[in-house]
Amino acid sequence: MVPPENSSDEYVTAKIIELESAALDRWGKGDPSGFLEICAPDIVYFDPSLERRIDGHDALARYYEPIRGKIFFERFELLNPKVQVIGNAAVLTFNYISYGANGEKSPWNCTEVYRRTDSNWLIIQTHWSYTKSVRA
Amino acid sequence: MVPPENSSDEYVTAKIIELESAALDRWGKGDPSGFLEICAPDIVYFDPSLERRIDGHDALARYYEPIRGKIFFERFELLNPKVQVIGNAAVLTFNYISYGANGEKSPWNCTEVYRRTDSNWLIIQTHWSYTKSVRA
Repeated sequence: MVPPENSSDEYVTAKIIELESAALDRWGKGDPSGFLEICAPDIVYFDPSLERRIDGHDALARYYEPIRGKIFFERFELLNPKVQVIGNAAVLTFNYISYGANGEKSPWNCTEVYRRTDSNWLIIQTHWSYTKSVRA
Repeated sequence: MVPPENSSDEYVTAKIIELESAALDRWGKGDPSGFLEICAPDIVYFDPSLERRIDGHDALARYYEPIRGKIFFERFELLNPKVQVIGNAAVLTFNYISYGANGEKSPWNCTEVYRRTDSNWLIIQTHWSYTKSVRA
């Protein structure tokens, strides 16, 4: 059982933002495993380069593997992160900016849905999109 | 209380897809109220034309009002809709294609998070993005 103090919305909000930030830190150093380690087996995933949704951890791991060691950014900002808690579900939304080595800014929209099992939160849905985009 | 038979994942999946489809039917006839009527007060919202997340029902209603009566499509397809149920939360993801009067196709990615209060499901998070997009 989760102790009551660990179930407050404030606790969950802080915990979810901490998990996401730690995974993004590793992502910006070329390491997709930060996310893969906190994704559930039934993860579903969207990003702007895909033709369709990716379903499942194995498929996401295959998608990430070719970019391992290839994505780097200097720093990032989570803008106005919001966590909506519904029992054992937590919906994290934020605008996001990563800054490259030359200061170039990449703004994104992101929705992550986390699910708690015992005291362990795992991502079951990820949706990344460009802030202000047009069809390719 | 929700009767047990209305709590099965199968029941919830069918119910959520029915709600979303009904709102999309009205959307394609120029009527954004189909969505506004099933959005919770704390709805958060992303789409490709925004600079940042929209927070709250009032702000979303203001955003939709200028396009009332201006969006029309002939038909749409929900491709491979998936509903992940976590207690009183349901996460709907799908690829989506709307077809205009001349058959032109508009493909999208969508994530909707619904929350149940008593037997009433309302959307608390919407994320629309273009399938295959580039920065504007």
